[in-house]
Amino acid sequence: MSKPIPEPTPADKFSFGLWTVAYPGRDPFGDPTRAEMDPVHALERLADLGAYGVNFHDDDLIPFGSDDASRARIVERWKKGLADTGLAVTTATTNLFTHPVFKDGGFTANDRDVRRFALRKVMRNIDLAAELGAEVYVCWGGREGAESGAAKDVATALDRYREAFNLLGEFVHDRGYDLRFAIEPKPNEPRGDILLPTIGHALAFIETLDRSENVGVNPEVGHEEMAGMNAAHGYAQALWHGKLFHIDLNGQHGPRYDQDLRFGAGNARGAFWVVDALETGGYDGPVHFDFKTPRTEDEDGVWVAAAACMTNYLVLRDKVRAFRADPEVQDALVAARLPELARPTLDEGEGWRELEQAELADPEELAVRGAAFEHLDQLALEHLYGVRE
Amino acid sequence: MSKPIPEPTPADKFSFGLWTVAYPGRDPFGDPTRAEMDPVHALERLADLGAYGVNFHDDDLIPFGSDDASRARIVERWKKGLADTGLAVTTATTNLFTHPVFKDGGFTANDRDVRRFALRKVMRNIDLAAELGAEVYVCWGGREGAESGAAKDVATALDRYREAFNLLGEFVHDRGYDLRFAIEPKPNEPRGDILLPTIGHALAFIETLDRSENVGVNPEVGHEEMAGMNAAHGYAQALWHGKLFHIDLNGQHGPRYDQDLRFGAGNARGAFWVVDALETGGYDGPVHFDFKTPRTEDEDGVWVAAAACMTNYLVLRDKVRAFRADPEVQDALVAARLPELARPTLDEGEGWRELEQAELADPEELAVRGAAFEHLDQLALEHLYGVRE
Amino acid sequence: MSKPIPEPTPADKFSFGLWTVAYPGRDPFGDPTRAEMDPVHALERLADLGAYGVNFHDDDLIPFGSDDASRARIVERWKKGLADTGLAVTTATTNLFTHPVFKDGGFTANDRDVRRFALRKVMRNIDLAAELGAEVYVCWGGREGAESGAAKDVATALDRYREAFNLLGEFVHDRGYDLRFAIEPKPNEPRGDILLPTIGHALAFIETLDRSENVGVNPEVGHEEMAGMNAAHGYAQALWHGKLFHIDLNGQHGPRYDQDLRFGAGNARGAFWVVDALETGGYDGPVHFDFKTPRTEDEDGVWVAAAACMTNYLVLRDKVRAFRADPEVQDALVAARLPELARPTLDEGEGWRELEQAELADPEELAVRGAAFEHLDQLALEHLYGVRE
Amino acid sequence: MSKPIPEPTPADKFSFGLWTVAYPGRDPFGDPTRAEMDPVHALERLADLGAYGVNFHDDDLIPFGSDDASRARIVERWKKGLADTGLAVTTATTNLFTHPVFKDGGFTANDRDVRRFALRKVMRNIDLAAELGAEVYVCWGGREGAESGAAKDVATALDRYREAFNLLGEFVHDRGYDLRFAIEPKPNEPRGDILLPTIGHALAFIETLDRSENVGVNPEVGHEEMAGMNAAHGYAQALWHGKLFHIDLNGQHGPRYDQDLRFGAGNARGAFWVVDALETGGYDGPVHFDFKTPRTEDEDGVWVAAAACMTNYLVLRDKVRAFRADPEVQDALVAARLPELARPTLDEGEGWRELEQAELADPEELAVRGAAFEHLDQLALEHLYGVRE
Repeated sequence: MSKPIPEPTPADKFSFGLWTVAYPGRDPFGDPTRAEMDPVHALERLADLGAYGVNFHDDDLIPFGSDDASRARIVERWKKGLADTGLAVTTATTNLFTHPVFKDGGFTANDRDVRRFALRKVMRNIDLAAELGAEVYVCWGGREGAESGAAKDVATALDRYREAFNLLGEFVHDRGYDLRFAIEPKPNEPRGDILLPTIGHALAFIETLDRSENVGVNPEVGHEEMAGMNAAHGYAQALWHGKLFHIDLNGQHGPRYDQDLRFGAGNARGAFWVVDALETGGYDGPVHFDFKTPRTEDEDGVWVAAAACMTNYLVLRDKVRAFRADPEVQDALVAARLPELARPTLDEGEGWRELEQAELADPEELAVRGAAFEHLDQLALEHLYGVRE
Repeated sequence: MSKPIPEPTPADKFSFGLWTVAYPGRDPFGDPTRAEMDPVHALERLADLGAYGVNFHDDDLIPFGSDDASRARIVERWKKGLADTGLAVTTATTNLFTHPVFKDGGFTANDRDVRRFALRKVMRNIDLAAELGAEVYVCWGGREGAESGAAKDVATALDRYREAFNLLGEFVHDRGYDLRFAIEPKPNEPRGDILLPTIGHALAFIETLDRSENVGVNPEVGHEEMAGMNAAHGYAQALWHGKLFHIDLNGQHGPRYDQDLRFGAGNARGAFWVVDALETGGYDGPVHFDFKTPRTEDEDGVWVAAAACMTNYLVLRDKVRAFRADPEVQDALVAARLPELARPTLDEGEGWRELEQAELADPEELAVRGAAFEHLDQLALEHLYGVRE
Repeated sequence: MSKPIPEPTPADKFSFGLWTVAYPGRDPFGDPTRAEMDPVHALERLADLGAYGVNFHDDDLIPFGSDDASRARIVERWKKGLADTGLAVTTATTNLFTHPVFKDGGFTANDRDVRRFALRKVMRNIDLAAELGAEVYVCWGGREGAESGAAKDVATALDRYREAFNLLGEFVHDRGYDLRFAIEPKPNEPRGDILLPTIGHALAFIETLDRSENVGVNPEVGHEEMAGMNAAHGYAQALWHGKLFHIDLNGQHGPRYDQDLRFGAGNARGAFWVVDALETGGYDGPVHFDFKTPRTEDEDGVWVAAAACMTNYLVLRDKVRAFRADPEVQDALVAARLPELARPTLDEGEGWRELEQAELADPEELAVRGAAFEHLDQLALEHLYGVRE
Repeated sequence: MSKPIPEPTPADKFSFGLWTVAYPGRDPFGDPTRAEMDPVHALERLADLGAYGVNFHDDDLIPFGSDDASRARIVERWKKGLADTGLAVTTATTNLFTHPVFKDGGFTANDRDVRRFALRKVMRNIDLAAELGAEVYVCWGGREGAESGAAKDVATALDRYREAFNLLGEFVHDRGYDLRFAIEPKPNEPRGDILLPTIGHALAFIETLDRSENVGVNPEVGHEEMAGMNAAHGYAQALWHGKLFHIDLNGQHGPRYDQDLRFGAGNARGAFWVVDALETGGYDGPVHFDFKTPRTEDEDGVWVAAAACMTNYLVLRDKVRAFRADPEVQDALVAARLPELARPTLDEGEGWRELEQAELADPEELAVRGAAFEHLDQLALEHLYGVRE
């Protein structure tokens, strides 16, 4: 006996990177285990599975160094594939990490010629992104960093990083594109330490940009968990700043190499809270999965994993909604004083002068009040287990 | 045969928390191994060792719940101790974590009565801090967080956090104090996940405050390393934002419990780069150590460890200066294209239109240029080893 | 609509440490938030909740330094409590970590007088353990370690460690006790690095003991996860060696401070596989929980958390059994070639000579066989979610 | 002014893997940045730099799938290169991880055909290893593991692992080779969780083998540090078991992706203690480096990094020897009671009966004895810094 497992539809706004389903299974110690995947084939299969959209790095679609004619042909075929399948292009991004020219990064490479090349590569792909209707342009600076101390002057590198975003902001503005940028933080891998290693560092950096209102973050669950961060807390802080422009969902087992497991695998309890943060925090963009099918699988396994990302999101969304709707949970939230947290600490019109004179509760009496968090958390766990609905 | 080991003087501006040297050796699994330390004794010994300043949590000095008369007596004696020893009070802070009333935090406790009590406790100690001449008021929100998902609504908690800092900013402004706030981030311990877990998260939060110009960060080496962060990178980013108002130096071995080893112990290579970041980044505040002498030691061991914090900073400062002055290093920096990183990516007056038309270098040619980072890093390591001077 | 949540009974053999439910909420940064708990009260409440057994450190029950008369009185009252509640004493252990005398460990303290004192303390409590019917004597060497390099000569310390276990093995043998030892590994906290940091290190050490057949391991989920280990893999290897003499179940969020969350919280997916490893691996000892109720809770919260440990085990046990019984899972296991893993690599009677001559499959053909692990793992996740039963 | 930096000679017994210097700079996110390196060129350069030996995976030298004629040609040329340069082959090993056939491991692949193929591949290369004079045969089971729970039955997999080593032990014995096996543990990457994740797990496993006396470990510094282990402690425990048959030295920054930094980079203080463990523990095998030159470097950078591995070992060896010879250190070791740790806990002829009657020191008096570890550790740090010699 099983409950009906929910099925994804385009209304759920699920999207996949071309590089995710087409990942051939190369890792630092092994050659590819799967054949190259035709991009249009990927579109067809994703549409079949119920996805809403796709996205891509320029080089996922158009091999690095393609001449203009090849490029045009590829783009034409891609557009036809999109039209045939009805999939939207939700975001696009630039590959500034695979080709050896980017071995020390793109926007913050010490080599100025590389930086100039990188900017042009981004501009060119932004044109394509806008043409294809993408609303967000993702920037993962995976190679912006260093393995050793003196190799990268961080302050100077941040100057260059800012210079790059200011130029691109100007470019998008002047072109009249309706396109926002989303920076994707990551703590390390493939560089020893990457600049803007967490959501927080990226949010702080964005505030220094000329057109900062047009730049937000694209946090990836696994990247935050590689730093031992609570991913749901990070998403919530990004939402609080009004900066959660896009999301990358997947799975990870804490501080270790970047696993990119399908969403749901990895930290299962964390995934519940990530979905809760998105649902209660009002995130309404595409629900994007950035996973890699393990190298052990053949192409069938790729589609199992892709479908499972969506299934797991839907299962968790149901659970989160049931959790929030459960009267016992609502009582438990009151017992845990969540409504009191929502009430300002100061009374209407109260300032420090009034507070200084106010009569306060006796701390010894406050100290013995139980917080009732364990009961609340156990209710959540029972919803995750599906023994409470 | 040994080189003369440098000796600290007040001109080096070393400071210690009262709680650091007086730490009695209680840990989660063990009772104190050392007797309580008289605060004035601590002042005397620190002055003997060459320190410049001290700082304290209110409760370090004045036991929680002391009546006004006891408080006055204690403060008087403390002032005399300061005068006798010539030590400055560099910063002060509030203990919002030891007493059970703060078991769910201070500024973001779900219990509103607790939040009000916390604010008053801070205000009272700010008055004392100002009276004693502190220039920075440190805020470590170690209990602002949660062990479980629903117990803390992060967005709401950040609202309360902001409310608290806005009130305190108003208070300091209206009182006319020359005092800036410094938020100290930490990822976890004693809470499962702490709000504002890294330098980045704190910097982003600060931008939302009413008097944000008066609030910066007080990063602790060990706290950043508990999240696998490169501490020197964090200090550099904080300096880049103009927000490094104070520092907490100590030692840690990566993601695990908060070790608070003496500075130099733990990540020895990281310590070199932290000192480099401070020296080259222009940090000019007090050099503060937030360490705990291991529980194995008696009081003699405490002073060995305290003295060693200063020694190690001085040794590393010498090394960093020698590294930066070494002609071979300067050549290696050029080979590694650091001067090129300092040059803007765009030419004077160049915008995206010009860049779009510019002639660029061939990426295949750029790709084969070696970055020469290993030689540079090996020179740094040889300076750390003292085999190159 | 909810499924009936299973209720624990003594037949489930759940046990709790006296120190777990009586944990008063002291942590490295905070004073206790809960009052001391009377041991007999603990027995009564645990019996009410459906527990089978209890266990204790000597000092949990009998304060360190008690005189013989007090000790006798306490033990008498404890025995009466046991008789009244029907709870069994499943294991006992010695506190070699709280009192300052053990600041550098017990069996491997550099101070020989401490080592001798530690051994006597253990012997005395073994007598009590045997009297109370405990079958396993747990040894957690939490203070056997070091914060710095030269302070502990590891080889010499292991000699002392072995000497201690050899003596205790002789003692138990000569006394005629039916008691086995179980070493509990932990990587760090409260020491910087603890000797025998993982299940593996302990298993290897045990092989060197005089009466090694009488010594096994007592792995704690959280301790293994603090080292980034897969706890289920560790339990499975211990079972494979015939050495899983006892277990400590709880929850943890990867490499960070020791959280001791209730079982089920923390790594929820890992907990499923831990229960699977125990159930399929034939573990039949008591199911022991070593958790600490968060400091935010009052005593009600303690019992919520204790009850939840048992609930979660039962829920997961049901899920694991349903998973293993599910025909779709059984098909998936065949597709993933688990039965083939169980078949020896060599044919009956085959040796290297025959293998050298055997006709082998073409590696290129083997390479394209998909492993079908993602489908299998998704089935497991759906069982965890309760959407498949 | 600098001290003379020591130069390596063959007498230092430094060795390098062919795969280390020939690593072309491919990583999970990037294509190679360096050209393929001719193996004989590698020999020549290593000999120039002062190395003693080399080692290799079969596929490093002989491309997977080479026919017998090509293989013979390659081996001939390699032997000539060895003869010309005077380099020894210290160890050899089998690549059971790059080709897609090994995507689920070699000895423990679920697919029995793969296991049989893997064994034959190892046997074939053992013949070559013996012919070339290798004394140790390294086995890194990097793909023996899983990303998900049910995919690998750990107990059954360990049965297969043991079967494989038993067969290979028989093979080596019957062939009459003077060759010992060394298992190289690793916690994760490229698999989610690898079997035998630490030194301890491998040591325990070895005890179950038919010819266990012929099997030891080859621990890699970085692999242990990826699990947060103290590498020096691990080496010391392996030596204590008489099982440190070979070593892999490199650098790492704690729990994250496998960095394979040159030895000395990464955990600089840990490197000091690793060298101390080897020197004081009597390790006398080759000193092998398993590093990867960062992808940012050209071939010049490779030789800088390779030379630096040796330099750093020599520098640290000098420091360790100076530390141990320093009279102040020797006094500090006495103060820290290291000689007392070396003294058995029991008197000559004493057993538990005598200990039970012995007069013991008062624990309260023992408790206040300071352990004097901080002074000792600071002396070590000053030796590392080179300010004390």
